[in-house]
Amino acid sequence: MSKHRYAARVRALEMSGIRKLFDAGGPDAINLGIGQPDFDTPDHIKEAAIAAIRAGKTGYTPNAGIPELREAICAKFERENNLTFRPEQILVTAGGSEALHLVMQALVDPGDRVLFPDPGFVSYAALAAIAGGQPVGVPLDETLHIDVEQAKELMDGARLFVLNSPANPTGAVESEESIRALVEYADDHGVTIVTDEVYEHFIYEKKHVSAAHFGDDVITINATSKTYAMTGWRIGYIAAPEEHIPEYLKVHQYAQACATSISQYAALAAYTGDQGEVARMREEYRARRDLLYSGLSGLGLKFPRPEGAFYAFVPMGRNLIDKAIEGGIIIVPGEAFGSRAPDYARLSYATSRENLSRAVGRLAALVE
Amino acid sequence: MSKHRYAARVRALEMSGIRKLFDAGGPDAINLGIGQPDFDTPDHIKEAAIAAIRAGKTGYTPNAGIPELREAICAKFERENNLTFRPEQILVTAGGSEALHLVMQALVDPGDRVLFPDPGFVSYAALAAIAGGQPVGVPLDETLHIDVEQAKELMDGARLFVLNSPANPTGAVESEESIRALVEYADDHGVTIVTDEVYEHFIYEKKHVSAAHFGDDVITINATSKTYAMTGWRIGYIAAPEEHIPEYLKVHQYAQACATSISQYAALAAYTGDQGEVARMREEYRARRDLLYSGLSGLGLKFPRPEGAFYAFVPMGRNLIDKAIEGGIIIVPGEAFGSRAPDYARLSYATSRENLSRAVGRLAALVE
Repeated sequence: MSKHRYAARVRALEMSGIRKLFDAGGPDAINLGIGQPDFDTPDHIKEAAIAAIRAGKTGYTPNAGIPELREAICAKFERENNLTFRPEQILVTAGGSEALHLVMQALVDPGDRVLFPDPGFVSYAALAAIAGGQPVGVPLDETLHIDVEQAKELMDGARLFVLNSPANPTGAVESEESIRALVEYADDHGVTIVTDEVYEHFIYEKKHVSAAHFGDDVITINATSKTYAMTGWRIGYIAAPEEHIPEYLKVHQYAQACATSISQYAALAAYTGDQGEVARMREEYRARRDLLYSGLSGLGLKFPRPEGAFYAFVPMGRNLIDKAIEGGIIIVPGEAFGSRAPDYARLSYATSRENLSRAVGRLAALVE
Repeated sequence: MSKHRYAARVRALEMSGIRKLFDAGGPDAINLGIGQPDFDTPDHIKEAAIAAIRAGKTGYTPNAGIPELREAICAKFERENNLTFRPEQILVTAGGSEALHLVMQALVDPGDRVLFPDPGFVSYAALAAIAGGQPVGVPLDETLHIDVEQAKELMDGARLFVLNSPANPTGAVESEESIRALVEYADDHGVTIVTDEVYEHFIYEKKHVSAAHFGDDVITINATSKTYAMTGWRIGYIAAPEEHIPEYLKVHQYAQACATSISQYAALAAYTGDQGEVARMREEYRARRDLLYSGLSGLGLKFPRPEGAFYAFVPMGRNLIDKAIEGGIIIVPGEAFGSRAPDYARLSYATSRENLSRAVGRLAALVE
């Protein structure tokens, strides 16, 4: 296996390291480490999948996805984001993960610089490196938002800029001004924007702004995973200029064939059905966010109040992080999200209020 | 999109070209073009998936797959192939497609030669090229089997050799002698064998022989897709030396996260449940094979009787291929499977006996 050409380039702390952390927690551990909704997939979505199974919709679908789902995704963009796409601009993928992989494989040449927020979601750097690119982290300011001026400096000569608002692990939501400034600057400098908007529905004060409003060379990635508590179903998609889609298909049709047929019918029900569950989940996440934020603030921990997603990113210091993990509170240390925030930890509030209260209680006993 | 680094390397006749062929068929067309079982997924497998959905098994699974499925796959290898694997040697993927992609991404360095049967399944060359490798077709003999002596000559300095028995598009089943000779020669010359055995259960006279019996540097790829009529569920797997698995995970965990959770529970039922449906499907394919072979032979077409999979690969000549397609018989011209068989066409018998009889009847009217 000595020929492995990207092993050395992928970050040291792999997801497997995070898994070991989870395993180390023990039976009494409180899990604030998890990066997925703790809700069950809504029933009407499950029933649509069951109906598809019973109807024998279990064969290959068109590589790009079933036509009715591509249309439903266009309707979703129109309804929720005020963006107009045609079905030919949509490619259905195995989650946001495959969507990111396809974009990197198609657009990144060896040595190309790929920018992403740092701290940020670990996959951006990993998938850029797998495509042969050079991952470059863009620093955040003290409020955990992208430093627009520094981002502009780094953009010269770069190939891609990955935006992620609301963001994992910070919970930050970028302002319309920042997003507009970044997209317009990228447009002027030949940098393609890849905008990962999977947490768009979990914002608690601000408003979600899609990057595609501000430029043409913008690739939007989204998924059912977070919005509808459907991580295991593996349905995401790319919305891009139409001429991009055949380029992504060149990898997708051979490496994937198609996203799981049953999951596509479930996703169709998700986008065309009642959206009430999404609002209910958002309100529950908001209550948990408030509980966790006030609890941790009460312990003297100072950090920006999370604006979106379901994470708090807290400068706890290495000592308290270690003590928390030893004390059975599973949290993810900042190294998992880049090199810039070793003293931070990500606390997921995709868990019950009871668990959050217990975690705050345990932390209280550990804080000097 | 000018930077696309492999576009020029991928074969000219893309699957999209084949799709256009299908679309051109018209409503009265007889479809012998399809590369998937026409059977429905067996009921006990569907019910297991429905139970998983109702039980809320809809979140991420471990990246490598649920432990019970990895164990069931080991039991399958023991029971069906007389091969011993441990669960740590198994990686569950989104179909055989992703399995092949991961192996190519991990093992192929830019410029590495990747050998595969030619004519052969289009993905081998495409995925080798996507990984930066140099695809090299290995010629078949007149009976459509691998020419072992020519294969040995091409093996010197190659990185991978892809075996596929039973084979798409030829229906050929390689003998134990050939497989042993190829694997042993590869072993001696530092060439890794990748053996795609997805059609193993559809063999009509000979016996399936797994390549992993004859060497250690052998990577076995298989899937539920063909065996259990589960193409849309997207479940395949890699069985390899244990030290390979973390290398494949480096791509899989970021590009896929995990195979669809529900499909994994369906696959678990497939491997642990009653195998009677597989035998019934095999006997039906056999009857269809006999019908198609005798029908085409009766028209004066001479070709090796298909030994496995569900394809006949027939040297019809360009003129008759064109007339057949114009006449509403959807078949796939040889160009879709490499450069060496432009006068051949692949006829799939994954369709009803009635359709096969009608197709032979229509062809009879076209043959001079």
